[in-house]
Parts: sequence; structure tokens; C-alpha cells
Amino acid sequence: MPRYRLRIEYDGTPYVGWQRQTNGHSVQGAIEAAILSLTGETVSVRGAGRTDSGVHAMGQVAHADLTRAWPEHTLRNALNAHLGQAHERIAILDAAQVPEDFDARFSALKRHYLYRIISRPAPLALEANRAWFVTRALDHEAMHAAGQMLVGKHDFTTFRATHCQANSPIRTIDRLDVTRSGDLIEMRVSAQSFLHNQIRSFAGTLKLVGEGKWTVEDVRAALEARDRKACGPVAPPDGLYFMAVDY
Amino acid sequence: MPRYRLRIEYDGTPYVGWQRQTNGHSVQGAIEAAILSLTGETVSVRGAGRTDSGVHAMGQVAHADLTRAWPEHTLRNALNAHLGQAHERIAILDAAQVPEDFDARFSALKRHYLYRIISRPAPLALEANRAWFVTRALDHEAMHAAGQMLVGKHDFTTFRATHCQANSPIRTIDRLDVTRSGDLIEMRVSAQSFLHNQIRSFAGTLKLVGEGKWTVEDVRAALEARDRKACGPVAPPDGLYFMAVDY
Repeated sequence: MPRYRLRIEYDGTPYVGWQRQTNGHSVQGAIEAAILSLTGETVSVRGAGRTDSGVHAMGQVAHADLTRAWPEHTLRNALNAHLGQAHERIAILDAAQVPEDFDARFSALKRHYLYRIISRPAPLALEANRAWFVTRALDHEAMHAAGQMLVGKHDFTTFRATHCQANSPIRTIDRLDVTRSGDLIEMRVSAQSFLHNQIRSFAGTLKLVGEGKWTVEDVRAALEARDRKACGPVAPPDGLYFMAVDY
Repeated sequence: MPRYRLRIEYDGTPYVGWQRQTNGHSVQGAIEAAILSLTGETVSVRGAGRTDSGVHAMGQVAHADLTRAWPEHTLRNALNAHLGQAHERIAILDAAQVPEDFDARFSALKRHYLYRIISRPAPLALEANRAWFVTRALDHEAMHAAGQMLVGKHDFTTFRATHCQANSPIRTIDRLDVTRSGDLIEMRVSAQSFLHNQIRSFAGTLKLVGEGKWTVEDVRAALEARDRKACGPVAPPDGLYFMAVDY
């Protein structure tokens, strides 16, 4: 059976998250429904990352096995037509036939995420549900400096959801950069894999640094505490974007 | 009566446009309702530009007269609270007390607009209603070159809605720049004032140039025709943003 790799953009606002669930409408379920409409086949679409409800993607990657081969452009366009008819906020950016041993999740070498904060007095009209709205001024250079405490191989128990199902709390963060452009503060984080809520835990903690409530040393101490209670508040899902996967 | 200048951001998608109308919900009406909730006063909010339904703003400017003076931050925050309670997609970016002879419309020296096109094969998920989705590749340099035909003082009858109410079809375009960043093509246009549908008429016409269907000379000929029928298709409102006004 030919295997296809799909690169996917979505507005996470109306979904229960990437993963199919019994209690709501998921991105995975919507794409599986589009494939069913197109091919008549009930397939399992497997994603590189399980984004939570409200989290967006500009480059989620998934794979699916179809019974017959499709021209790649035709598959992309036909799936987008079915997603559009269903009024989904999901777009298949491209589809490519890949070797049968390609696995969107297990073949991933690196995952890239973006967290967007807009810091200004007025609420968000155009960027509602697209960024974390923060009224206080943030020192992005302090956030970047504190973020460097989180780069490298660490036990991230502090920055992991209590219900995280990973076997180990140890991860290696390859990059964490905080930059500013006007009111917009962007945190870009890359790693082979992440723990559940890890990036939102980073963002919520670094916001405390940006506000001047925490120092670089407080972040280091929180990391070394290996205690979930040492974490800052978890940032909302609206600001998080799954950007790309390297294979 | 103290006069206030409001700088306003809105998502134009759910509105009939800036102007209060009997047949639907307008941005102007929503702000007037917020002022009524806050002050108990029925006021008229006058805007610098009458954006059409679906057109957005990052910097619309309006003025309103209130019976009592408000601290500027308090007025901004209180109006935003009322707009938020009403689930409006409108934010007051700032409020400032201005001299009584300030008029948002007639004091304007220059208006700045942005038109956004996203050119890619896949439909827009995150940018739905925020840009014109065009599947064909566009040559933005050709669009920019053709756009220079439209800069300066001209009779813009070709690029004016048939129901435009302006007395004269003559306007002076100060700037028209087309730039690209990845899939995103941005057209920025500045002038003291515009005719109805003028920028969307420019965008639709320049798209024909970007696709290679029209040349720079075709645009010049369309302008010189002074005939609405010589215009390219009017671009959709989703891509248009009222950015700023100079006073």
C-alpha cells in the first residue's frame, strides 16, 4: 500500500486537538473523514505531534496508507476540496509518496515550535485566538537570556504536565530563541521531541521573567527543582504553533 | 464638549462595514453602542474611512464628542471592556483628547492601506478571511512595476466603483509598493483620499499583471480609458487593511 506524507496547516481554535477523541471534533478525525469521503477507505492518519485543543499548526506532518497510488497534487487538492466542503479550518499544504518505513512520529529528527505573545494595552481583534494577549510590557532580552537555562539535555519534570505519558522526563532542547518585532514577541523552540505542555510551560515561565517577577536564576532553580509545582503558569494554547518537522 | 480621537483595530469579517446601516451590524454602530453603555450618551462616531464589509483595520481613526472628560487610558480600557462583553471583534488601540476642530475624516492628510495576497496551492486555514487566496504564482516585481503607472495625480474613473459618491474621479496616489515575503504578497498604497473600491480595483488589476495576463502597458491603457469596464476584477475585501491615517 502506498504511504503518503501530508504537511498540514490548521487553526486549532475549534478542535479538541490533533488526536481523535470520543468527546469532540479533532484535526486527525477531520482528515480521516476527508480521506474516507475521497477514497471510501477508513484509514488511520498518524501525526508527528499531538497538539492540544487551541494549538495551531503551520507544518504538522502526518502519514497515511492508501490502497491505491494518487498523483501527489491530485491527492492534496482533492483532500482540500473535501475539507473545504466540511468547513474545516485545515489545509493540506502538500502530499508526497514516501517509503513504507517512513513514520511521521518515529522518523522525526527535530520538531520546531513557535509561541507568539502580543504585549500591548488593547485586546486583540485581528489576532484573537492567534497569540497570547499580555497587557504588561515584557523584556524579551531577559526572556531570551533565561531561556538559555532550558537549552541542552535536562530533566524537565518541572516543565511537564502532571498527566504527561512519556516514560522519561529527560529531553534535549536544541534551541530556544526569544525575539521581538513591535508588540509581537516570538519564542522559537526546537528539539527532537517534547514533553506534554513543555513549550507552554516554558512560555508561561519566561513571561514571568519578561515582567521582571523572575530572574534567570529563578528559572535555573525551577529547572533544578524537578518539581511541577516550581513551574510558572502554563501559557494558553492560542499562542502555540507547530511549525515544522525535520526528517 | 471634549472631543476624543480613537485609533481602532477590527476584524471586518462579521460586519456590514464601518458605517452604521439599517440592515446589519457595523463597526461604527458597535463602538457607538459601547459608548452608550459606558456613558449613557448617544453619540455619533465619525471615522476617517468607510471600509466595506469584510475589510479590516489595524489603524482606523474616528472621533467622538463626550459630555465629560475621561482619562485617556480609562476611556480606552472601558470601551474595550464593553466591546469585549458584546463579543465584538473590535479593539480601541488608544484614545486621546484632541482639539474641537479635529475631524477624523476632514483633517486627514494621508491614508495608508495594505492589501495582502497569499499565493500558494493550498487553501488558507490560519489566514482564512485575512488575505486573498490566489493559487497561481504571481510575479510581484511585474505587479510593482505596473503599479507605478497608478502613482501620481490621475482621473481614476476606471478604478472606481460605479456607485462611488465622490464628486471627482481625480485622486493623487503618493505610493504604491508591491513586495513579497515567501507566499505573501503585500501591496501598500498611500494617498490623501481614495475613491470607493479603488484599492481593491488596483489589487484585482495588478493580480492580472502578476499572472502574466496583463502588461504594464495594459494597466496604463486601462487608466487612460477612464472607463470602469476597462478595470480588472475587483479583489475581495478579505485582503484589505486600513492601516493608519496621518494628520
